[in-house]
Amino acid sequence: MSSEKLILDGTRVAKSIKETLVERIDHLTARGILPCLATILVGDDPSSETYVRMKSSSCKRLGIDSRRIHLNKAITTEELIAAIQQLNADPQIHGILLQHPVPPHIDERAAFEAIQIDKDVDGVTMQGFAQNAFGTANFPSCTPAAILAILDYYQLPIEGKHAVIVGRSPILGKPVSLMLLNRNATVTICHSKTNNLPQIIGLADIVVAAVGKPSFIQGAWIKEGAIVLDAGYNAGNIGDVDYKACYIKASAITPVPAGIGPVTIAMLLKHTVFAAEKSKMLT
Amino acid sequence: MSSEKLILDGTRVAKSIKETLVERIDHLTARGILPCLATILVGDDPSSETYVRMKSSSCKRLGIDSRRIHLNKAITTEELIAAIQQLNADPQIHGILLQHPVPPHIDERAAFEAIQIDKDVDGVTMQGFAQNAFGTANFPSCTPAAILAILDYYQLPIEGKHAVIVGRSPILGKPVSLMLLNRNATVTICHSKTNNLPQIIGLADIVVAAVGKPSFIQGAWIKEGAIVLDAGYNAGNIGDVDYKACYIKASAITPVPAGIGPVTIAMLLKHTVFAAEKSKMLT
Repeated sequence: MSSEKLILDGTRVAKSIKETLVERIDHLTARGILPCLATILVGDDPSSETYVRMKSSSCKRLGIDSRRIHLNKAITTEELIAAIQQLNADPQIHGILLQHPVPPHIDERAAFEAIQIDKDVDGVTMQGFAQNAFGTANFPSCTPAAILAILDYYQLPIEGKHAVIVGRSPILGKPVSLMLLNRNATVTICHSKTNNLPQIIGLADIVVAAVGKPSFIQGAWIKEGAIVLDAGYNAGNIGDVDYKACYIKASAITPVPAGIGPVTIAMLLKHTVFAAEKSKMLT
Repeated sequence: MSSEKLILDGTRVAKSIKETLVERIDHLTARGILPCLATILVGDDPSSETYVRMKSSSCKRLGIDSRRIHLNKAITTEELIAAIQQLNADPQIHGILLQHPVPPHIDERAAFEAIQIDKDVDGVTMQGFAQNAFGTANFPSCTPAAILAILDYYQLPIEGKHAVIVGRSPILGKPVSLMLLNRNATVTICHSKTNNLPQIIGLADIVVAAVGKPSFIQGAWIKEGAIVLDAGYNAGNIGDVDYKACYIKASAITPVPAGIGPVTIAMLLKHTVFAAEKSKMLT
């Protein structure tokens, strides 16, 4: 392994993904199809509002249409599902993103399941999850897909490596574990009930932090030369990784911000374009 | 940990599961519902024939009806799916088991997907897989469910333990990994591309062998006091674990035969009874 330190530049990876989309969007619009992503925000959580705004403006910059649906936080599960079904039925909408999390009184799983599989560009449905687990998904969850895209962009090998994932959520920890497994990594999944977490992280060639605790992953835990991927987004633009300390040990590391975040958005755009292309094939 | 060596007796666990079913089956038959499992065998593989016969006779002994469907090995995917759809539509059938593997010219995944979710008593559909991954499955895959049932019967704790699963098939390695994860184990999934497998197995408090290679797991690899669960079935009643050598190191171990096998069948019966109970509720 080279002693050169690699900062995995998400902005650069995102740019390269978006560049591949320009011609595809042109092709679609020339045929009268404007790819369109619907984003649904429930309630007034400021960081969720920011994410949704970022996604919409990323669409706009690339020539993808977006429709922002902002629902009152007092909405019921049934009303949310009705809104999703309207978007399912709308031929001008190609992708649907329901911003996580929704207010606690809403059955988020039921809402996710209401998204039609061919518009599930964020891979949140159970069908999408299973397709991803079996390696046949059109739209794997965007953050897991972004993690793989970064590794691939920098030609960092996955096969035979030991990947340790910290976190087991249905839209991040579990799917990224299965994607790395399908790419022939040996995969360990850790979480809040894991004993001796530092020792297990110390085994990892690839660490994925998806735990939701600011600066949680310590430099001392990281094996010399490991690759560190920080999927955390905490208040104040702080990741799940103690960046300075992990930087010293890692051979390659994603910063926060400008790490996995922009690539996640690029994957969302890519999936929306692909969904639009597929909708064209169907008609 | 006690120095007493525990042989995890699958016959005993299976018996205790079946005992809980007797009264439930009586209740159903008293209401005119005879729980019925349909088994589908494609081709003439002798061990598959044996498995299917064992499943049918286990049904019979417990008062569960079974319908054996034996299809010619030259059948097409479409013909197999048509046979499954007939069973889906038949109100007298509560569970459908398609014996794995089918001949290579058949699209096994497509056939599995044809099974209606409320009759998918072996948890082979993608929907069943995802429900299992999210901890909401009515019918988790039977062998993974059997592994958990054995651990629970012997009150062996799972939470916080490091489980190493060797194998990543969609009906065994992947679902058992996710089930142990949902029970708060730290989970490592290994496979043919894993480097330093002996070292990784040496970390395990719980080893699940699901690799399909006779006597593959060596005693020298096992940590002193680990629990060893052998889900392998190879020719000549040989598991995936070198039993004699692993017995010496383990605190608890499943034999082959009379380990996971009979519990797998008991889970299939349990799921069939549950499916019949649910069908009654629907009408």
